Amino acid sequence: MTQPFGVTQPLGVTQPASAPKADAPGADQSRAGGLRAEAPGGREPVGRRTASGQLGVAELVERARAGEPRAVARLISLVEDASPLLREVAERLAPHTGHAQIVGITGSPGVGKSTATSALLTALRTQGKRVGVLAVDPSSPFSGGALLGDRVRMQGHATDRDVYIRSMASRGQLGGLAWATPQAIRVLDAAGCDVVLVETVGVGQSEVEVAGLADTTLVLLAPGMGDGIQAAKAGILEIGDVYVVNKADRDGAHQVVRDLRSVLSLGAAADDWRAPIVNTVASTGQGVDDLVAAIEKHRQRLESTGEISVRRQRRARDEIEAIALTALRERFGDLHGHADLDTLAGEVINGSLDPYTAADRLIAAL
Amino acid sequence: MTQPFGVTQPLGVTQPASAPKADAPGADQSRAGGLRAEAPGGREPVGRRTASGQLGVAELVERARAGEPRAVARLISLVEDASPLLREVAERLAPHTGHAQIVGITGSPGVGKSTATSALLTALRTQGKRVGVLAVDPSSPFSGGALLGDRVRMQGHATDRDVYIRSMASRGQLGGLAWATPQAIRVLDAAGCDVVLVETVGVGQSEVEVAGLADTTLVLLAPGMGDGIQAAKAGILEIGDVYVVNKADRDGAHQVVRDLRSVLSLGAAADDWRAPIVNTVASTGQGVDDLVAAIEKHRQRLESTGEISVRRQRRARDEIEAIALTALRERFGDLHGHADLDTLAGEVINGSLDPYTAADRLIAAL
Repeated sequence: MTQPFGVTQPLGVTQPASAPKADAPGADQSRAGGLRAEAPGGREPVGRRTASGQLGVAELVERARAGEPRAVARLISLVEDASPLLREVAERLAPHTGHAQIVGITGSPGVGKSTATSALLTALRTQGKRVGVLAVDPSSPFSGGALLGDRVRMQGHATDRDVYIRSMASRGQLGGLAWATPQAIRVLDAAGCDVVLVETVGVGQSEVEVAGLADTTLVLLAPGMGDGIQAAKAGILEIGDVYVVNKADRDGAHQVVRDLRSVLSLGAAADDWRAPIVNTVASTGQGVDDLVAAIEKHRQRLESTGEISVRRQRRARDEIEAIALTALRERFGDLHGHADLDTLAGEVINGSLDPYTAADRLIAAL
Repeated sequence: MTQPFGVTQPLGVTQPASAPKADAPGADQSRAGGLRAEAPGGREPVGRRTASGQLGVAELVERARAGEPRAVARLISLVEDASPLLREVAERLAPHTGHAQIVGITGSPGVGKSTATSALLTALRTQGKRVGVLAVDPSSPFSGGALLGDRVRMQGHATDRDVYIRSMASRGQLGGLAWATPQAIRVLDAAGCDVVLVETVGVGQSEVEVAGLADTTLVLLAPGMGDGIQAAKAGILEIGDVYVVNKADRDGAHQVVRDLRSVLSLGAAADDWRAPIVNTVASTGQGVDDLVAAIEKHRQRLESTGEISVRRQRRARDEIEAIALTALRERFGDLHGHADLDTLAGEVINGSLDPYTAADRLIAAL
């Protein structure tokens, strides 16, 4: 019954022609205790499907756990679209989560994050691991932000049943990706991924801070991206558990490593983990085994110090908060009368009200 | 009484040795209706000062309006630190705001945002305009994110009394800069700035979306920053009112312009404003007059179409919402018992609770 994983865009789950007919009326009837109803036209089986022919959430979660890529895609879409089914999805996923190792991959556009992600994926597959990739980076070729077609670079994994690749697009809502990304990670976790790679710009002021999502955060740099200190300015030198100097065969790579080492030595580590610097040429696979080893060493470290629990606790707190804030924000939009947001905004613009008093009115009206 | 503006780091307001002694006990006494109290030690004047020697908010706003840089700095610090005085600050600023033109400047690290900001500043000063600069870009040499000392590049304006430069550092709070930045703009607006330049990375998933803050948004690109389409990937080609190809004397600049033109022609403009592309070499000032003209043309356009009101309304709405959400988030941290955030997070981690139900409990307990 397990379907091959692959590069899948959001799709409604439809019955693949080649799959066993688990949803055929007979199978449906037997599992649903003999109850069967006919949809208009008499051809649509119900029970575990809704009247519209969509699978129910329980069945989707079951199929996702069995590794069916379209079920995984559909669940992530429900999360991303803030579907009314979202709560049921979350409830049914909850007991099956908490097993995946989450690895964040961040760095400026152009350092080769996507190539590195792809190389890591290959190395982890060699170890027999089931891997999920979530691209929440608008500059990523996997993500919805890409204008050009280079997302095909990952297509080498398209036929691998133990790889699931998904891009997430920002819906432009405050907190949109902030809550959708952890939920999407949960889907991949419940779907049996041993490792979830999360690729994001995630730097500084970004809405999706990769360091808050991951057990281990990789920060990528490359020569030729301005000076080696550019990364320091971008604030990413505080969040790395492992640093990767990619395109290490290019001129200037040694200088990047030297600069990086010098800047890293300035920061006092909270514990005595010294973030390693790994040289890679992701496009050829050079150094990727070292990177995998560094990630594994950090994972062991997180376990032995108990830091893993601290990170997961913080992550769960952030997740709950982000969901609550998004829900409250939606309520703001529904308020009318003297707490109508447009009325309040008008008063702020004409100077008769300050924005804090306006916010008080908004909260009081919730 | 007007003090020269200048490059000023956050400071408590202290009496400058060279200024008239407006706060000397005598002056204080006369304005405060003869009331005077002695602080411990008998040397600290009160009245418009608090017992700690700080000026009161009313006096700070009065001084900021008169152009005193330390008063401006202090007000922005109160905003940034979410001081208990924040509400009074906002109330007292409200009647004096709404006059400044807000120009956002964004682009990837390395395109020369800071140099362009500095060149714009010089050009606007030539026109006799009073200018405020707010750097909320962690990669900016003006901002707190800078590790190296190149913020001195702006020091050429340090002695100009009609320039105020301020960097804002993220406090790492969700929504921190999202609400602090508009308030800081209000301070500069009330302080009489004709133009406020806001420099930020503000792209895609960024917490501080410059397009939401500004009347006119400048998007900077430069040759040699990957390919010319890099910017398109980064999502900044949807937000520009004016595009600037900086470092236009370098190889590849023509290609960037060509690529940009081709990508821009794909997007259907909501109105019939065609975002112009301006070539600059900000470091020498070349093209900066054209840039100033393009900004002015866009401003006239905003006025004539009424779009300026639409943008300001949206901005005020966003501002009110961001303040309300921040306040609600603070309340979350104060909850105890079954809505204690750590307890909820623990239940989410062990799979006995899903994060949506946890968020419900949090909201219900507000």
